[in-house]
Amino acid sequence: STLKLGMIPADGIGREVLPAAQRVLEALGSSIPKPEFIPLLAGWDHFTKFGTALPEETIQVLKTECDGAMFGAVSSPSNKVEGYSSPIVALRKHLDLYANIRPVASVPGMEGKQVNMVIVRENTECLYVKQEKIETLPDGTKKAVAIRQITERASSRIGRMAFELALKRAEERAANPGGSFWKGPPKVTIIHKSNVLSVTDGLFRETVRAVKEKDASNRYASVDLEEQIVDSMVYRLFREPEIFDVTVAPNLYGDIISDGAAALVGSLGLVPSINAGDHFAMGEPVHGSAPDIEGKGIANPIATIRSAALLLSHLGYTGPAARINAAVNSVLLEGQVSTPDLGGKSSTNEVIDAVIRKL
Amino acid sequence: STLKLGMIPADGIGREVLPAAQRVLEALGSSIPKPEFIPLLAGWDHFTKFGTALPEETIQVLKTECDGAMFGAVSSPSNKVEGYSSPIVALRKHLDLYANIRPVASVPGMEGKQVNMVIVRENTECLYVKQEKIETLPDGTKKAVAIRQITERASSRIGRMAFELALKRAEERAANPGGSFWKGPPKVTIIHKSNVLSVTDGLFRETVRAVKEKDASNRYASVDLEEQIVDSMVYRLFREPEIFDVTVAPNLYGDIISDGAAALVGSLGLVPSINAGDHFAMGEPVHGSAPDIEGKGIANPIATIRSAALLLSHLGYTGPAARINAAVNSVLLEGQVSTPDLGGKSSTNEVIDAVIRKL
Ligand SMILES: CC(C)[C@H](C(=O)O)[C@@H](O)C(=O)O
Ligand SMILES: CC(C)[C@H](C(=O)O)[C@@H](O)C(=O)O
Repeated sequence: STLKLGMIPADGIGREVLPAAQRVLEALGSSIPKPEFIPLLAGWDHFTKFGTALPEETIQVLKTECDGAMFGAVSSPSNKVEGYSSPIVALRKHLDLYANIRPVASVPGMEGKQVNMVIVRENTECLYVKQEKIETLPDGTKKAVAIRQITERASSRIGRMAFELALKRAEERAANPGGSFWKGPPKVTIIHKSNVLSVTDGLFRETVRAVKEKDASNRYASVDLEEQIVDSMVYRLFREPEIFDVTVAPNLYGDIISDGAAALVGSLGLVPSINAGDHFAMGEPVHGSAPDIEGKGIANPIATIRSAALLLSHLGYTGPAARINAAVNSVLLEGQVSTPDLGGKSSTNEVIDAVIRKL
Repeated sequence: STLKLGMIPADGIGREVLPAAQRVLEALGSSIPKPEFIPLLAGWDHFTKFGTALPEETIQVLKTECDGAMFGAVSSPSNKVEGYSSPIVALRKHLDLYANIRPVASVPGMEGKQVNMVIVRENTECLYVKQEKIETLPDGTKKAVAIRQITERASSRIGRMAFELALKRAEERAANPGGSFWKGPPKVTIIHKSNVLSVTDGLFRETVRAVKEKDASNRYASVDLEEQIVDSMVYRLFREPEIFDVTVAPNLYGDIISDGAAALVGSLGLVPSINAGDHFAMGEPVHGSAPDIEGKGIANPIATIRSAALLLSHLGYTGPAARINAAVNSVLLEGQVSTPDLGGKSSTNEVIDAVIRKL
């Protein structure tokens, strides 16, 4: 059997880091089904050349032929461009990849902030429904409005995902106590701003609480349930990141919190994610297309390599995923081979080589 | 002549820190008009007792009798409570205090992150218009929506405020080069998420840009204009806070960024703000009502003392404001007297006493 993966490099350094996933997966040998990589198009560059940022074919191939996918990064125009819309946001919606799972962990044994958390970001609604309009007022000035949507359905399924993940992480910690920094009981922290948005964030908060509190089987009884107002969350993230295990957030707060958490572990270039639905998942490094370093061959491939591991683990290949993560941690711990974002002098390819040697 | 100030302690530690403003202003002696303090009611406690969080009388007295005001902090119920709405949000709107100005600076000479920035937060719209509704869908589940509003008028006046502040800060630095950490040219950084919210944040971004670019007199020619996407902003705030001077943001991003910046300088208990309009201003510490330490007499009064200084400066008493700030910095530098949030053992009153001794 084979493992068919759609590969969507998109823009900028997305094109430089995506091959890392391919090389590392190939290096795993027979421990996974033979991977087959299907290159697919999307992105701002594609839009400027062909007038579409997300060709219909890309969606179709993902839906009908692939077991999973890897996405690179997108560039965005800074001005509104007629007809352009972010392809990553569109892909998440088209494939109903409702959970954006973003683990952020410091490497055990390394200096710096001690953190081992995962951000479970709702991926389909909030302000990302992109229902915006603009009008000219009688006085000639403009007024724009956007809709922020929160549904019970989306909040409930993302809440369940968060609680399941908390249980899974607790199991992994029990199996490998030395492998993790977080030592407390499983915990889910709900991020919201219901002191201002009492209706929308109120619904999110209550619905996630209900996942635990109204579960007849008491499946999540062992999981602590906490809350943080989003502004206070950013404060605590910097002051005491060690207190977090699983956090669950509406789309935009999740987006913002992820970048904050990435700052804690030294570089956005280290932080992986998967966009996961009930039937499909797509790995994606959290960093952007980084126009400032595009073409220099020095983009950090680790976020992409870890995203490939997350994807494997999601597809059930937890052993090979753990091998990748161990190899990455060992390269980081040794600190001999690293890209400039981590203070090193190595190239993208040198880091990939180093990880493969450790596999 | 007198300086009439409305004093609104509201909830929790708001009641413990607000007297700090009063005592420090009184200690300034004849360098300012004799202050007169008018106690005014608002808050969650007031709501639970009397059914209103912001009595009409409070608004009227502020509007007709006061030269300025000081606000403490509000508690918020975690569940939606019929009829309750945050009084601080309402006050900002009623008095059209459209700018929330939040300077965050490390004390020159002290260890830690070097930062000297100010967050200029739009204070009247964005998701804070609080137009929310909820409905039950045909399948029996709930769907809630909120309106996010951005207008050209509000974006333009907050943009102008940001550029004016950048010029003012540059002047102050020129007059007192040793007093400040930031050494670059004046700079305004626009925070937005126009890669997703191209219409609303697009309008905010373009309108703020136009304040500089379309100014016929070229008044802001010396001010650099930069941008940060809000998620990337949170990342940079932690990685390289020294690159920021004045940042300007829609309401919710400004709320989130302020707490992040506060984490950089060691405690939310240090960060002041004023809510300013064209005709009125109200000082307000950035921290909340802190139920965990309420009643212990250990809340940090420095955010409130600095807010009083900001208010004085806004009213034109820059000399006395500078005296307060110098006294605070000197207490912080000595590090002998500090509250537990800064690792010390002193009480609120001991810190107030120490600041007054340095005046
Ligand atoms: C590029 C942008 C649309 C995207 C988002 O906001 O989701 C990015 O910031 C992310 O976190 O994946
Ligand atoms: C208490 C709350 C309504 C308020 C806000 O969100 O504006 C607070 O967080 C602040 O920053 O002043």
